[in-house]
Amino acid sequence: MNRSRLEPLGVPESDYGYAADAENTPRRDPNAMDRWLVRQITSKLGESPVRIALWNDPDITPRDRTVLMRIRDPGALWQLVVNPELHFGDLYSAGRIDVRGDLLVLLNEAYRYTTENKALATWLARSRRLAAPDLSEARRNIHHHYDISNDFYELWLDREALQYTCAYYAEQSMTIEQAQQAKMHHVCRKLQLKPGETVVEAGGGWGGFALFMAKNYGARVRSFNISKEQIEHARAWAVREGLQDAVEFVEDDYRNMTGTYDAFVSIGMLEHVGAGNYRLLGQLMKRSLAPEGRGLVHSIGRDNPAPLNPWIDKRIFPGAYPPTLREMMELFEPNELSVLDVENIRLHYAKTLEAWLERYEENVEAVRSMFDEPFVRAWRLYLTGSIAAFVRGKLQLFQVLFARSGMNRIPWTRANVYTQGD
Amino acid sequence: MNRSRLEPLGVPESDYGYAADAENTPRRDPNAMDRWLVRQITSKLGESPVRIALWNDPDITPRDRTVLMRIRDPGALWQLVVNPELHFGDLYSAGRIDVRGDLLVLLNEAYRYTTENKALATWLARSRRLAAPDLSEARRNIHHHYDISNDFYELWLDREALQYTCAYYAEQSMTIEQAQQAKMHHVCRKLQLKPGETVVEAGGGWGGFALFMAKNYGARVRSFNISKEQIEHARAWAVREGLQDAVEFVEDDYRNMTGTYDAFVSIGMLEHVGAGNYRLLGQLMKRSLAPEGRGLVHSIGRDNPAPLNPWIDKRIFPGAYPPTLREMMELFEPNELSVLDVENIRLHYAKTLEAWLERYEENVEAVRSMFDEPFVRAWRLYLTGSIAAFVRGKLQLFQVLFARSGMNRIPWTRANVYTQGD
Repeated sequence: MNRSRLEPLGVPESDYGYAADAENTPRRDPNAMDRWLVRQITSKLGESPVRIALWNDPDITPRDRTVLMRIRDPGALWQLVVNPELHFGDLYSAGRIDVRGDLLVLLNEAYRYTTENKALATWLARSRRLAAPDLSEARRNIHHHYDISNDFYELWLDREALQYTCAYYAEQSMTIEQAQQAKMHHVCRKLQLKPGETVVEAGGGWGGFALFMAKNYGARVRSFNISKEQIEHARAWAVREGLQDAVEFVEDDYRNMTGTYDAFVSIGMLEHVGAGNYRLLGQLMKRSLAPEGRGLVHSIGRDNPAPLNPWIDKRIFPGAYPPTLREMMELFEPNELSVLDVENIRLHYAKTLEAWLERYEENVEAVRSMFDEPFVRAWRLYLTGSIAAFVRGKLQLFQVLFARSGMNRIPWTRANVYTQGD
Repeated sequence: MNRSRLEPLGVPESDYGYAADAENTPRRDPNAMDRWLVRQITSKLGESPVRIALWNDPDITPRDRTVLMRIRDPGALWQLVVNPELHFGDLYSAGRIDVRGDLLVLLNEAYRYTTENKALATWLARSRRLAAPDLSEARRNIHHHYDISNDFYELWLDREALQYTCAYYAEQSMTIEQAQQAKMHHVCRKLQLKPGETVVEAGGGWGGFALFMAKNYGARVRSFNISKEQIEHARAWAVREGLQDAVEFVEDDYRNMTGTYDAFVSIGMLEHVGAGNYRLLGQLMKRSLAPEGRGLVHSIGRDNPAPLNPWIDKRIFPGAYPPTLREMMELFEPNELSVLDVENIRLHYAKTLEAWLERYEENVEAVRSMFDEPFVRAWRLYLTGSIAAFVRGKLQLFQVLFARSGMNRIPWTRANVYTQGD
């Protein structure tokens, strides 16, 4: 539980050598061109613990932090060279690329490779267009993310509040359950939420935070979500907790929010809103705030504008976009909202993802029985790659507290966030 | 000292009725057109404690929160209608407009007037170009802000650190001296400044903060400033404190900073840099940061982009511009810097300005003997108007903490800022 961020994550050796599709079984030995391509990759990596082996090369047992990446067929090698950010995920998921050793070490190196070699990146960006036609080929190989059941997430998210967003490790020794409770307290303290106040939530997931606010802060909450499956889960949960009168779960888009509230909160929805809709969302935020209301938006973000990793975009979160702070300001500046406080807790997301990945691996047999091996590998890659992205600073986690411009019943300092007990 | 923000500030009655220039003495009674112009202003103000009197009207003693604004000649009335934001300051300074009652109440109403009446504002903006030719007329009336001596600021700034920037009232009962010390501690804690670390400061004023960091945190500081008078003051102060080996005051532009440091800090300089130079300043910030360095920029800002009040721009801070957070991001996003924390403490600036204004009025005779009555009135107006701007939310005060993108030796939480003693 308390492993440091950069220690090996111990992906089970048993998963090494997952059988590739029969159609991709190599029909020839690696040739001079294949070796040249490998040298192009390794020369860019420089001093790196990553070793690359081709389909008929002898096996090497990785030592220390060495990682062996085996490319199992010529087509996989070409796809990797042409567009690693897009194809690595599918090739790994399908078992056409295998990794022996610490997957996180490999992905950390991959970030170095893709960001420190601007010339190569430019070349790859041009190549991406050429590679486009064959994208549809692999689409059928993995279950799409929207088909995933609540049961799957319950296997590896925290067991108390089912939070599929960054936790807050007020103390580094916290469990994921404790850290998710601490995250929710942290948000409520920033909002200075008081008993009897009303809250509107945009994007409520399985309802854990809405119920938390009702139970721990005496708030009356309306929570919007377009996922029918999540709303049903949330309503049943409210009844079990006896909170059905305090919390209303509305199956509707945030664009249909009505009424005014003492607080607006949105945890992990902005990533899915699309930058073109920020001004509109900001209008709705302002409209839903009482004159002395406070709001908080919690979102994955970036230091610099960049599209989401194309494989994640294709397989895990279609249409998602992590904005920079500058881009996020489109929520506030055109809508006479004032930013009071921004906190970046990206390393907390790395730690959250570590906890999720550990629990995921503990329950990997259950995942395999629900889905199949490519799914197991795809989600392992997604969770591990996300750790690398937050550790390397390619992704940020911003909490932005705001109010109407000129509203003066704002916290005098932030000390109250840190001096209250749980 | 502990008055709340919106109580009357008690501008001395004795200053009411300062003699207008002889050339502006009215030669005629108010006519129908003059009355019509006054009604245009009062109708826009709606329910307001402000009463307007013209040059030959009988005197009214303001009651409760009522404020009497007397316009002393027909030219002043016209200038006020054509471009109140620009001309009010000069007219008030010259005694062509007088205010009886609380100047802050009047200025608060003025913000309502200029921002809630968009149509009028648009009309005024168009009129501004027409009004431009006579701007130079009043230029000779007031001493320019760059001619002001250190002695003047010592009359009303805090006596311990001569901070001409927003203080931090960790407790609302603090004196201005305590609150400026608390501000400096607040910044050093955000930077996690440790003994022996090196700091570069861009825009060091009279040297108070540089000396504070050396004295209280054991830092070695290089502080850049282009003001010869301030640098001389700072060097003499360092010698008096025995800190001349720990702090180097460099009379040079921030653009000529060399070396790398554990911390970069800039308190109240960004307002004078100009938005077009932010990307360059950001480059210098990054270049001056050691790989694990931290930086903090403290600046007046805005919720929405707007030029500085034209009178302030002309009389007090030529060329100053308070940026929005979106505009400030030009420092960070193009330069691979990561924003860790943003705090908006605008109400602390209102309280700081109240303390300054109170002390200013206590020492107004000394100011009058150094300068003249228009100067006394101009600075009263500037300090009072700034209180109104921060209370109304027309100005913000942002502290932005940052580091290089991907730097992981960042504070795990912000709790350390709030749990240490002074």
